[in-house]
Amino acid sequence: MIQIMAVSNENEIITNVAIDDVDFEKLKWWWIDFNIPTDNEIEKLDTILHFHLLAIEDCILSLQRPKLDYYDDFSFFVAHTIDAESFNQYEIDFFIGANYIVTFHKNDLDEVNQVWNTFLREGKILDWDEYRVFYEIMDKVVDNFFPIVYQMEDKISKIENNPEKQSMDVLLDHLFELRHQLLDLRHSINPIRDLFYRILNSHHLEGIKDRREYFVDIYDHLLKLSEMVDSNREVTNDIRDSFISINSYQQNKVIQILTVVTSIFAPLTFIVGVYGMNFANMPELNWDFGYFIVLGIMLVLAILMIAFFKKRGWFR
Amino acid sequence: MIQIMAVSNENEIITNVAIDDVDFEKLKWWWIDFNIPTDNEIEKLDTILHFHLLAIEDCILSLQRPKLDYYDDFSFFVAHTIDAESFNQYEIDFFIGANYIVTFHKNDLDEVNQVWNTFLREGKILDWDEYRVFYEIMDKVVDNFFPIVYQMEDKISKIENNPEKQSMDVLLDHLFELRHQLLDLRHSINPIRDLFYRILNSHHLEGIKDRREYFVDIYDHLLKLSEMVDSNREVTNDIRDSFISINSYQQNKVIQILTVVTSIFAPLTFIVGVYGMNFANMPELNWDFGYFIVLGIMLVLAILMIAFFKKRGWFR
Amino acid sequence: MIQIMAVSNENEIITNVAIDDVDFEKLKWWWIDFNIPTDNEIEKLDTILHFHLLAIEDCILSLQRPKLDYYDDFSFFVAHTIDAESFNQYEIDFFIGANYIVTFHKNDLDEVNQVWNTFLREGKILDWDEYRVFYEIMDKVVDNFFPIVYQMEDKISKIENNPEKQSMDVLLDHLFELRHQLLDLRHSINPIRDLFYRILNSHHLEGIKDRREYFVDIYDHLLKLSEMVDSNREVTNDIRDSFISINSYQQNKVIQILTVVTSIFAPLTFIVGVYGMNFANMPELNWDFGYFIVLGIMLVLAILMIAFFKKRGWFR
Amino acid sequence: MIQIMAVSNENEIITNVAIDDVDFEKLKWWWIDFNIPTDNEIEKLDTILHFHLLAIEDCILSLQRPKLDYYDDFSFFVAHTIDAESFNQYEIDFFIGANYIVTFHKNDLDEVNQVWNTFLREGKILDWDEYRVFYEIMDKVVDNFFPIVYQMEDKISKIENNPEKQSMDVLLDHLFELRHQLLDLRHSINPIRDLFYRILNSHHLEGIKDRREYFVDIYDHLLKLSEMVDSNREVTNDIRDSFISINSYQQNKVIQILTVVTSIFAPLTFIVGVYGMNFANMPELNWDFGYFIVLGIMLVLAILMIAFFKKRGWFR
Amino acid sequence: MIQIMAVSNENEIITNVAIDDVDFEKLKWWWIDFNIPTDNEIEKLDTILHFHLLAIEDCILSLQRPKLDYYDDFSFFVAHTIDAESFNQYEIDFFIGANYIVTFHKNDLDEVNQVWNTFLREGKILDWDEYRVFYEIMDKVVDNFFPIVYQMEDKISKIENNPEKQSMDVLLDHLFELRHQLLDLRHSINPIRDLFYRILNSHHLEGIKDRREYFVDIYDHLLKLSEMVDSNREVTNDIRDSFISINSYQQNKVIQILTVVTSIFAPLTFIVGVYGMNFANMPELNWDFGYFIVLGIMLVLAILMIAFFKKRGWFR
Ligand SMILES: [Mg+2]
Ligand SMILES: [Mg+2]
Ligand SMILES: [Mg+2]
Ligand SMILES: [Mg+2]
Ligand SMILES: [Mg+2]
Ligand SMILES: [Mg+2]
Ligand SMILES: [Mg+2]
Ligand SMILES: [Mg+2]
Ligand SMILES: [Mg+2]
Ligand SMILES: [Mg+2]
Ligand SMILES: [Mg+2]
Ligand SMILES: [Mg+2]
Ligand SMILES: [Mg+2]
Ligand SMILES: [Mg+2]
Ligand SMILES: [Mg+2]
Ligand SMILES: [Mg+2]
Ligand SMILES: [Mg+2]
Ligand SMILES: [Mg+2]
Ligand SMILES: [Mg+2]
Ligand SMILES: [Mg+2]
Ligand SMILES: [Mg+2]
Ligand SMILES: [Mg+2]
Ligand SMILES: [Mg+2]
Ligand SMILES: [Mg+2]
Ligand SMILES: [Mg+2]
Ligand SMILES: [Mg+2]
Ligand SMILES: [Mg+2]
Ligand SMILES: [Mg+2]
Ligand SMILES: [Mg+2]
Ligand SMILES: [Mg+2]
Ligand SMILES: [Mg+2]
Repeated sequence: MIQIMAVSNENEIITNVAIDDVDFEKLKWWWIDFNIPTDNEIEKLDTILHFHLLAIEDCILSLQRPKLDYYDDFSFFVAHTIDAESFNQYEIDFFIGANYIVTFHKNDLDEVNQVWNTFLREGKILDWDEYRVFYEIMDKVVDNFFPIVYQMEDKISKIENNPEKQSMDVLLDHLFELRHQLLDLRHSINPIRDLFYRILNSHHLEGIKDRREYFVDIYDHLLKLSEMVDSNREVTNDIRDSFISINSYQQNKVIQILTVVTSIFAPLTFIVGVYGMNFANMPELNWDFGYFIVLGIMLVLAILMIAFFKKRGWFR
Repeated sequence: MIQIMAVSNENEIITNVAIDDVDFEKLKWWWIDFNIPTDNEIEKLDTILHFHLLAIEDCILSLQRPKLDYYDDFSFFVAHTIDAESFNQYEIDFFIGANYIVTFHKNDLDEVNQVWNTFLREGKILDWDEYRVFYEIMDKVVDNFFPIVYQMEDKISKIENNPEKQSMDVLLDHLFELRHQLLDLRHSINPIRDLFYRILNSHHLEGIKDRREYFVDIYDHLLKLSEMVDSNREVTNDIRDSFISINSYQQNKVIQILTVVTSIFAPLTFIVGVYGMNFANMPELNWDFGYFIVLGIMLVLAILMIAFFKKRGWFR
Repeated sequence: MIQIMAVSNENEIITNVAIDDVDFEKLKWWWIDFNIPTDNEIEKLDTILHFHLLAIEDCILSLQRPKLDYYDDFSFFVAHTIDAESFNQYEIDFFIGANYIVTFHKNDLDEVNQVWNTFLREGKILDWDEYRVFYEIMDKVVDNFFPIVYQMEDKISKIENNPEKQSMDVLLDHLFELRHQLLDLRHSINPIRDLFYRILNSHHLEGIKDRREYFVDIYDHLLKLSEMVDSNREVTNDIRDSFISINSYQQNKVIQILTVVTSIFAPLTFIVGVYGMNFANMPELNWDFGYFIVLGIMLVLAILMIAFFKKRGWFR
Repeated sequence: MIQIMAVSNENEIITNVAIDDVDFEKLKWWWIDFNIPTDNEIEKLDTILHFHLLAIEDCILSLQRPKLDYYDDFSFFVAHTIDAESFNQYEIDFFIGANYIVTFHKNDLDEVNQVWNTFLREGKILDWDEYRVFYEIMDKVVDNFFPIVYQMEDKISKIENNPEKQSMDVLLDHLFELRHQLLDLRHSINPIRDLFYRILNSHHLEGIKDRREYFVDIYDHLLKLSEMVDSNREVTNDIRDSFISINSYQQNKVIQILTVVTSIFAPLTFIVGVYGMNFANMPELNWDFGYFIVLGIMLVLAILMIAFFKKRGWFR
Repeated sequence: MIQIMAVSNENEIITNVAIDDVDFEKLKWWWIDFNIPTDNEIEKLDTILHFHLLAIEDCILSLQRPKLDYYDDFSFFVAHTIDAESFNQYEIDFFIGANYIVTFHKNDLDEVNQVWNTFLREGKILDWDEYRVFYEIMDKVVDNFFPIVYQMEDKISKIENNPEKQSMDVLLDHLFELRHQLLDLRHSINPIRDLFYRILNSHHLEGIKDRREYFVDIYDHLLKLSEMVDSNREVTNDIRDSFISINSYQQNKVIQILTVVTSIFAPLTFIVGVYGMNFANMPELNWDFGYFIVLGIMLVLAILMIAFFKKRGWFR
């Protein structure tokens, strides 16, 4: 679907026009939104709006890396959004020219709809232009990363504290998945962050200057996001190392128990085996207190063994 | 609570005035402190002081990343302090203008109170201006990080030397927690450090120049702090690796004991089992010295086994 | 084989000429392709085309690092292609001069053949020059890296999910091999990426400027490739760490079973051994219910043991 | 103790003067050394020499980070020396002004004494000035790091080769300590290295220019030291990883022995147990060759077991 | 030994002159080679050639870090060569002045001899000058690193594939040694690489400009070498991690066998022990089929055990 919103030279809002019928000369500035466009509609990027074929190709191809290209008469910007539930990545493309902005996205994006409706509802025509539209959408795109990162931090805390007493292999599986998602998140956030750095220090996008503090604010949030993602990856790393350490310590304890049990009973079982032999000539067997002497010896042996391991600190 | 401290054009200290009653024209310079402000008081940032809405928004939102923004007529600086006991992070915000400083914090901060009282007590009016206030507060904020880092170094030494002979899983837990805190500390200190680098090399904050060596001194302490935190993280890393190594070495020793015990007694127990069988026709059982011959053979076997493991160095 | 394609000053395509017969003066621009050249043909780089000996040496030597050298009258560019199936690396060398391009490769390369045929088929003489040839070949070279990386991502997913239930040592072997290939891939892609950065910011290759957006597009793909390779290496790293963690956890479980079994049966086997001894005087043996009392004691012992380990959480 | 050495305008060496009696006007250049100064003497930094309070504070505080501050009329430089035996770190501070140098250290430092004596002994007055003093001391300070690093390399070699056959946990302890010391060393050397880089590229210290090659020589040694420290840390890392690998390999071997012994004797011990049962009706017991048949079966079983494990490569 | 080679102003080659007899005025350019010089000969660096004492000191001291110093009237360059067999590092020093080059090395170096002989043999006097000498030697020095790196790659492959079926601890030892050598190699190659970058971008060595493409060619090889070394270190790291992973997986398998064997035979051995007891009143012993019933029960138990472990996937 292609939607148009324009402000005429007489400061009137024009909307609900078909793209083929627009008289661009009469417009102060305009915004065209390509929302899940058909192939037919995509062609209008070329036939009516005359954008460069490489930029159009980048729109069509799915999941481009976030990027910013300066063409002769417009700038082309690609950003990602992430769906908080499905963790799907979506792409949104911007063409920003002298007095227009074109947004292009193959999925219905809340961020765009909200801005569209805010503008219509507020009706403060003089406060808006194409850069305000760009700022408002990107502000929402970036803000929407925060709940995702917070949600991941919660998941990490849950793995760390393990309130549901899940077994370690389940936790390790979650951890691995989280690390993968943090990696994906980094690959969406960091390039956008770097592009905003370029935007803030570029002479190409003139309209940015008038609202510099607003775009600095977005850049700031991107810095914070990028730090949070890196920090969370470090924490997951620490958790895993910690799991391995504790696991290896516990294994040590278990093997100590095994060794103590074996070391105590192996000699005792041997001794009782000796007197279970059926040799005809075994003098001890006929001693009156042979049985009780052997029991006594075994008791002493067991106590010595336990004392030995206790001294080595194995029961601590 | 909003508190005001000002120096009039006649070099008199003015305090105890309500913010709505101040005549800013008559002041040489002034300092307003928003200490745990009510919503009502926060509004005065906009209605009376006319700061940019983005800066006010950053005040209201909790735990912003440390930052420095230059607006047209003032600079906005956000720093963190950390409570040494609870390890809570608090935020302090500064608005620095042509002849004023505004401090904003949602928690009662010792650093601010101390400076406030020092100024009142000393009364050296001519030595102070808004940059002196900024320096004195930040100097205390940064100095307060040191006891926290020293305290962490003590904890690390305690884990390293383990005077209370705690078990390794408890130590590993402490270590993990310390690493997490060091990470948080790094995320407070490093951005402030980088902002001070910017402050020292910027032309926006004119008043810095006159006291450059003082701000260099703070920057220096931040450098030292940042190095200490990184170094401590490396040491915790080393401790953990060392724990794992030693644990794995000890496990080896335990398993060697288990293997020695098993290897010695398994064949012996088998032999006595053989002569415990009840076959009618077992010639050895009726030999005169059968029992003693078997005992002798087992002794030799045990000695050979022990010699074998000794040669392999398992008892070292 | 040496093939020639040229556009004369009269805009006619000239092909099928022997290199010794070309009259370079009459050509607007020309392209000579050295495809698996014989030693004899290689010599013509010197005798007829008069290239610098160092550049010719780089052609002859196999698997040079990707590089870009500026000579007085031409630029020399070396890139790699990788065969998706055999994972063999091939080299392609470009000499780009004022009005010509020379391509040199010791293997038949699809990328070159496709461009050659496209030009002949399309026949849009005015749209092409030597830089167009360079762009078209490099565009294909870079695009051909994508299926290779996608294929590796598939292999990684397969190791991660292990649908064929292969044993862990086989998976670890695949993982090691994949990591090696990713390293090789990085050593082909990253230098080309860096060279394109230099190309885009250099004044040596004048013809690039007219098609800057096209070469930026290639650079962009190289950035994406490089990020994908690094990210995949991180994922393989995570998979291996995850394997080790899970393995160590499982070993713990197995050793717990071993310890439980040993701890339960070692004392029981000892007890039955005691009453298997053949001492003449063992009062219990003649008690009426001696046998059943011992059975009962052993049952209680076993239950206590199991309860002990259950309480320790070993059966969770 | 405060010692003074000065060269008068008439090129005469003046020494043995009390600091309060010096007429600085008559001196071409001078050097004052504060060696383990009393509180009283420290005050003279302010009262007589009029240095900035921040610099004096840095003198008093212990173990400042190595630093270089430019004040209006002097430069302030802090370096560390390390005692080769105790591994204690000491601080030395320099104030370098237009025609003077002041050295300040709370410990008696050989480096300073040597230079002091060399100057007095040589008496080549015209060859020396305050920068020569600075160079000579720092040259010695930096050269003194080398034996420390060499000594650490020797210790590392000793851990690697283990000539005294110490057990692995002792070696790991040494290794951990060495890594800690290398970290401390890095924190002394790297900042000094970076400061010398700044010194060499600064316009503040004019006297450096005339002796640039000498200070480059010191910088060079610092580069070498820094590389040696980093390389040694990498080697200790490798040693530890190597220990862990070898330990884990050896454990494997030990567990294989345990498993072989258990696997051979468990079934055999079971079999002899079977024929140790006292059932009235056990036909085999009365066979003529029952005993020998069972012995034979057990022999075959044992041989099969050994063959099985041999085939699996467990005895390699 | 000191050898001299010079080209006179009349373009004649002069050689076999003693250093004390040379009339430097009459020479267009000259090359003096100090090959394993005696102390006496070393002194001539100062007395006859008048080089700066710091540079001479660097010649005398052994195994300086590769470096490049610009003195007033000459440049001083230190490089390393490595002997492919002994892995010994040797140093070669260059003094390059307005019309001369002096080479200094304490070991007989093939690289120098080859260039010396080539020049004499070729006799193309006009093609050579002091920079040509420098290029030719360094070209050989750098080329000689390649066989060393290739040889290490072969050793790494051999460890990876282990054709001689060596045990893992031997392989780990080799690996550790290789990693150490790669570290040493990096410390020779990387500084030379960085110095060549400086050489190529410096205005000090005027003669480089005329042969820029030749020195770029050397720099290129150094880049390749440095990448190879780093990549090989990463591969050795991967091999070690892979060894540890596989080792830990195999240990798991071995412990599973141990646990299966123990778990099957411990209860069986207990049962036969029960019926080996000598109680007077044990009813089962007198049942007709008691023996066979017990055998049957034990068979069922064993089968259940095996089924249990099979279901858990331990035999996969
Ligand atoms: Mg797209
Ligand atoms: Mg926002
Ligand atoms: Mg992914
Ligand atoms: Mg990224
Ligand atoms: Mg970690
Ligand atoms: Mg904000
Ligand atoms: Mg706030
Ligand atoms: Mg302070
Ligand atoms: Mg945290
Ligand atoms: Mg940070
Ligand atoms: Mg470490
Ligand atoms: Mg080649
Ligand atoms: Mg392409
Ligand atoms: Mg390879
Ligand atoms: Mg690379
Ligand atoms: Mg594209
Ligand atoms: Mg990882
Ligand atoms: Mg200070
Ligand atoms: Mg001090
Ligand atoms: Mg020195
Ligand atoms: Mg320390
Ligand atoms: Mg440092
Ligand atoms: Mg390592
Ligand atoms: Mg491990
Ligand atoms: Mg030197
Ligand atoms: Mg030397
Ligand atoms: Mg070469
Ligand atoms: Mg070495
Ligand atoms: Mg290096
Ligand atoms: Mg070459
Ligand atoms: Mg690795």
